[in-house]
Amino acid sequence: MIKNDLFLRALKGETVNRPPVWMMRQAGRYLPEFMAIREKYDFFTRCRTPELASEITVQPIRRYGMDAAILFSDILVIPQAMNIEVQMKPNFGPYLPNPVRTSDDVERVCIPDVTVELDYVYKAIEATKELLNNDIPLIGFAGSPWTILCYCVQGQGSKTFDKAKAFCFTNPIAAHTLLQKITDTTIAYLKEKVKAGCNALQIFDSWGGMLSPTDYQEFSWRYINQIIEALKDDAPVIAFGKGCWFALHTMAQSNASALGIDWTCSARNARYLTGGNMTLQGNFDPARLLSPPMEIKKMVTQMINEFGKDKYIVNLGHGILPNVPLDNAKAFIDAVKEYNA
Amino acid sequence: MIKNDLFLRALKGETVNRPPVWMMRQAGRYLPEFMAIREKYDFFTRCRTPELASEITVQPIRRYGMDAAILFSDILVIPQAMNIEVQMKPNFGPYLPNPVRTSDDVERVCIPDVTVELDYVYKAIEATKELLNNDIPLIGFAGSPWTILCYCVQGQGSKTFDKAKAFCFTNPIAAHTLLQKITDTTIAYLKEKVKAGCNALQIFDSWGGMLSPTDYQEFSWRYINQIIEALKDDAPVIAFGKGCWFALHTMAQSNASALGIDWTCSARNARYLTGGNMTLQGNFDPARLLSPPMEIKKMVTQMINEFGKDKYIVNLGHGILPNVPLDNAKAFIDAVKEYNA
Repeated sequence: MIKNDLFLRALKGETVNRPPVWMMRQAGRYLPEFMAIREKYDFFTRCRTPELASEITVQPIRRYGMDAAILFSDILVIPQAMNIEVQMKPNFGPYLPNPVRTSDDVERVCIPDVTVELDYVYKAIEATKELLNNDIPLIGFAGSPWTILCYCVQGQGSKTFDKAKAFCFTNPIAAHTLLQKITDTTIAYLKEKVKAGCNALQIFDSWGGMLSPTDYQEFSWRYINQIIEALKDDAPVIAFGKGCWFALHTMAQSNASALGIDWTCSARNARYLTGGNMTLQGNFDPARLLSPPMEIKKMVTQMINEFGKDKYIVNLGHGILPNVPLDNAKAFIDAVKEYNA
Repeated sequence: MIKNDLFLRALKGETVNRPPVWMMRQAGRYLPEFMAIREKYDFFTRCRTPELASEITVQPIRRYGMDAAILFSDILVIPQAMNIEVQMKPNFGPYLPNPVRTSDDVERVCIPDVTVELDYVYKAIEATKELLNNDIPLIGFAGSPWTILCYCVQGQGSKTFDKAKAFCFTNPIAAHTLLQKITDTTIAYLKEKVKAGCNALQIFDSWGGMLSPTDYQEFSWRYINQIIEALKDDAPVIAFGKGCWFALHTMAQSNASALGIDWTCSARNARYLTGGNMTLQGNFDPARLLSPPMEIKKMVTQMINEFGKDKYIVNLGHGILPNVPLDNAKAFIDAVKEYNA
């Protein structure tokens, strides 16, 4: 049904001629065609207008021909749907004017009817599927409950998310109540995304690496695993925890179809920590896309050799940076397509 | 000569009744007596006035009785001495108005006569030694050359230090010239610090964890190791790389007397990665000091049990947070002093 199913086959662990490739944040600010839309429409208008979200989603595919598209959206549509106000401030990032700080605040957080509140996402998926014409698979995504809690409690981005951690460590009961509400909402949301046409799912745990191994199990992995268990029969699930090398062994025991790896974990370490038999995705340092294109190509080839071409999805170790030249992004994608085992 | 030499004995790997304890940033904003001085004098006045720097250094010792003091200063006194302007902006952090961005900029960076330019630091050490009265050892410190480069090039703090990395990846020759200049200055500076009375040294590589394992070896560890080799006969050197778990194996082959560990690396992993025979220092999550005091004490005892009481220095995994209650810091220190093997 999907013409280029390289990505889905890698998720199943099948033997392939070359690994599939896509880039986290591939529909992003390094693309002039994205910037043109960004100048006209604010962030949430872009997310909520199916014509815009779908157009943005396919822009990088048209230019570079990645093996998978990922729906343009944001992890913070979830707290928004849960009746927590989220603003996207220019030159600042997400801002939540009424952060969750007490047990009462947690009580007031609602579990929404995601079929109603996030209707615009499924419409964007349908519009994207039409544009993609079954050429490649479409990935849907959500933030991990811990990462969503980080924003809900801190109220904005942070280097340490100290307020979010303080909340969990001083009021663990309220924290777990909030995490469960986010988890339940996320599960319902992702099920609808698959129904609308997503072929695979990715959970982004951007701030899992802020936690100690013990706290990670308690406040993050437990909930990610609930999501994986609930979705495993709907679509393949990729779990990506930035800085979560210490949990890879546990994550590899789960029903995730693949694990995302950041660039601080070498291919050898990643294969060792995950038992050598799991599909892995990553892990090019986004800042290394600032190297000259010829050097990028060499490093990508070496990366594929180190991970091995099978059970592997080429990607960055985090989102692409806005200042990456177009030719450098092209070198990254082309190096994978030109790969000869 | 030093009455309580627990810290120095742990650095030598000797058997002790309990491990020594200190806290990174122990002379800091969580202390009301520190805040009183901070209200009257700006950052660099506090660093440059021996009476103030020494008073601030001993404040936490008076209150809690740690087993080591660490001189109040800043890693950015090095670029300042190298003729790069450094400002400390309130509510913003370090700001370098003329960042290093080109080969010409690197050429203009000078290697200073540290005996002249950083004279105020040695005077602060002498004043501190008098206040300490040989009760406990005094630690001197410096940033790693990579971490100093991060600020020199980026010009301010950053979540990704993308400009610093771009500089290294697009102009590696200039980057290595700058790193070598910083290294040479740091070695001369640390030798003077030992002459002035420091009993041990710590290298802070706060941003080493931003680099891939390969880039870390090239842009960070190579220079840290030069410093260790140059200082190993002057004083014991502790190397602390935040997020640098992936390099612990290499670091353990060096002549460092101890390695700092952050809280994402469990005691078991840290012992395994360093070969089980190295003195380790760390690794309590600073945000866990926001837990109730009784819980802190339990967690500290468990941490000591996991690292083992020998070849171990109790510390946080990064600097203490400004919002930690005094009783919680006390619980951390007391738990170590009350430890019974």
